[in-house]
Amino acid sequence: MTEEERYQLGVETMNAVGDGSAQRVIESLGDIAPDMARQIVSWGFGEVYSRPALVPRDRQLLTLGMLTALGGCEPQLEVHIGTALNVGLTPAEIVEALLQAAAYCGFPKALNATFVAKKVFGERGLLPVTGA
Amino acid sequence: MTEEERYQLGVETMNAVGDGSAQRVIESLGDIAPDMARQIVSWGFGEVYSRPALVPRDRQLLTLGMLTALGGCEPQLEVHIGTALNVGLTPAEIVEALLQAAAYCGFPKALNATFVAKKVFGERGLLPVTGA
Amino acid sequence: MTEEERYQLGVETMNAVGDGSAQRVIESLGDIAPDMARQIVSWGFGEVYSRPALVPRDRQLLTLGMLTALGGCEPQLEVHIGTALNVGLTPAEIVEALLQAAAYCGFPKALNATFVAKKVFGERGLLPVTGA
Amino acid sequence: MTEEERYQLGVETMNAVGDGSAQRVIESLGDIAPDMARQIVSWGFGEVYSRPALVPRDRQLLTLGMLTALGGCEPQLEVHIGTALNVGLTPAEIVEALLQAAAYCGFPKALNATFVAKKVFGERGLLPVTGA
Amino acid sequence: MTEEERYQLGVETMNAVGDGSAQRVIESLGDIAPDMARQIVSWGFGEVYSRPALVPRDRQLLTLGMLTALGGCEPQLEVHIGTALNVGLTPAEIVEALLQAAAYCGFPKALNATFVAKKVFGERGLLPVTGA
Amino acid sequence: MTEEERYQLGVETMNAVGDGSAQRVIESLGDIAPDMARQIVSWGFGEVYSRPALVPRDRQLLTLGMLTALGGCEPQLEVHIGTALNVGLTPAEIVEALLQAAAYCGFPKALNATFVAKKVFGERGLLPVTGA
Repeated sequence: MTEEERYQLGVETMNAVGDGSAQRVIESLGDIAPDMARQIVSWGFGEVYSRPALVPRDRQLLTLGMLTALGGCEPQLEVHIGTALNVGLTPAEIVEALLQAAAYCGFPKALNATFVAKKVFGERGLLPVTGA
Repeated sequence: MTEEERYQLGVETMNAVGDGSAQRVIESLGDIAPDMARQIVSWGFGEVYSRPALVPRDRQLLTLGMLTALGGCEPQLEVHIGTALNVGLTPAEIVEALLQAAAYCGFPKALNATFVAKKVFGERGLLPVTGA
Repeated sequence: MTEEERYQLGVETMNAVGDGSAQRVIESLGDIAPDMARQIVSWGFGEVYSRPALVPRDRQLLTLGMLTALGGCEPQLEVHIGTALNVGLTPAEIVEALLQAAAYCGFPKALNATFVAKKVFGERGLLPVTGA
Repeated sequence: MTEEERYQLGVETMNAVGDGSAQRVIESLGDIAPDMARQIVSWGFGEVYSRPALVPRDRQLLTLGMLTALGGCEPQLEVHIGTALNVGLTPAEIVEALLQAAAYCGFPKALNATFVAKKVFGERGLLPVTGA
Repeated sequence: MTEEERYQLGVETMNAVGDGSAQRVIESLGDIAPDMARQIVSWGFGEVYSRPALVPRDRQLLTLGMLTALGGCEPQLEVHIGTALNVGLTPAEIVEALLQAAAYCGFPKALNATFVAKKVFGERGLLPVTGA
Repeated sequence: MTEEERYQLGVETMNAVGDGSAQRVIESLGDIAPDMARQIVSWGFGEVYSRPALVPRDRQLLTLGMLTALGGCEPQLEVHIGTALNVGLTPAEIVEALLQAAAYCGFPKALNATFVAKKVFGERGLLPVTGA
């Protein structure tokens, strides 16, 4: 792949799973860190996320776990909980993942992530969550 | 204990040390993660916090240390600094704990926790802290 | 569920996905923290892991992400990478998950987890990993 | 050094690299944790930062790395990105440091720090960053 | 206090709660970072730990929480679990603190700390822990 | 740049600052995660580290701060403290950086990093450190 092809694959991958919120993050980097923006697209999406070895639903479960565990990544959780819904994780599955996070990361981090999920679900009219 | 008894013990334990703020967190989970709410009450308070091996003042010192160290847990610190006051830790002791946190977790995390304490103390008319 | 039923469900759940390594951790707690051992079984496995809202393969992906992000949890990663294999994640999928972890948690934590995976895969005769 | 001399050296060191924002943090501790304020000045600046073994530009690069990696330290990053500019790091160098942080800490933490930098640079009329 | 008085107070404070293991850490810094060694004694023990606002038992509970939450601090946990015993925390109280840590930091970090406690208790002939 | 050129630039960059230890890490990934090895070289070194906006000495100070703050990254610290020496940071500067890390990350993480430095310095005959 050339550099341009990697970037194009990144854009396509990002658009296939996103709803515009990752794109807005990328755009907001334009006047400060355009090379970081380009790396997120070309490398993060074009070289890593696009690989077929894990489907997007798997990747979003994994990312949900990582962002909850890292802590302090609420803005990224907001984007990725939206993406999780886009690629087929149900609200009840996301909430279940966060209950499991309580056992591995403790309740405080699990709660922080749950309140981000509540915001995202609320904006999409997905509250109350049933079956959770 | 039956499941109902565990839940009742959790509610009683939570009410005995709390001032309603933990309860409001629990309630706000109602439309998204009711099972997480139930686990916090039944397990966190009913099975763990209620154990007599450590008194509430000990538990709150411990939790103050953990939440400061984890980072990014300001909402939980706000609840737990309130609880710390409820169970007998003085403002000066809480501030002292956060000075010690500077040595073990660094000044940035200690400062984040101190500004949460300032908010809680201010709301309770406990500023300025004397003897700190 | 009674307390005994929760414990039994926990044991069954742990045995269904495990290969004895989680069990050995539980046993090694016997002379120091038997109640923590019981809580891991009754609560962690009996009340959380056993819930049908996520299948074990999903839970292990999530846990792989969390343990890699937390850092310093190599002993738990060793158990959980084994469990991941038991519930159907392939070596190539696990390695792929860790490449994605590099993008979200940085290369140092991803490398630490990868070397734990190398140990587990080696013990099971799964090296070299093909298709990764 | 006497205690008073340490404090004076701390004040001078802080003033030499700062623009008043660290001073405002110190002042805001006055009614809750004056001893923490004093330790930051006397010890943090007077005994540690003032040592000649590393120049301020080196110290700010190091601190930029630490605060980004810790996570949840956005208020401290805001102060220290300002200080970084004061001691001679250029906006392009700060942005470059945060791109490297993406490789070691992952993109989420790097993005959090980048958006703090965007705020600080914007307030100083340093956007767009050229050469980044 | 003069610098010499701070150092002396630090040595006395360290000796009063310690059993030689903190001292050995300090000594092992002698050929690489003697100033860090001096700061731990003069500042950490002489200026922070020696303050009467919290008794040593309180400080060790707090530190146990912080080190467990930080993760990757097993060598420091080993020293501080020893100190905790020295200042009056019982093995059962320490184990109880770590069960509470499971709720706030997750089981993996709680387990890491518990296995350090098992080592320290074993060396002191305190196993099995009764009443835990 | 083509993919091959990126990889070559990565190898050259890695060789220019390294002493073979990063290379050995890369090689040890060969039978488990060759694509992660390739990404570290092509992306980490070829696209990020090779950028001229920060000189290697700056990058190593930054990385020293990040790895110390992350915690649990002792294997990476060992490689990077060696690299820090290679690119011109003196033992006294590295030790000074770790003293500053005590103020921002707490003494436990600073100590962990200092003992890694002691190992690396010892292997290179650089102990005792003078002027630290």
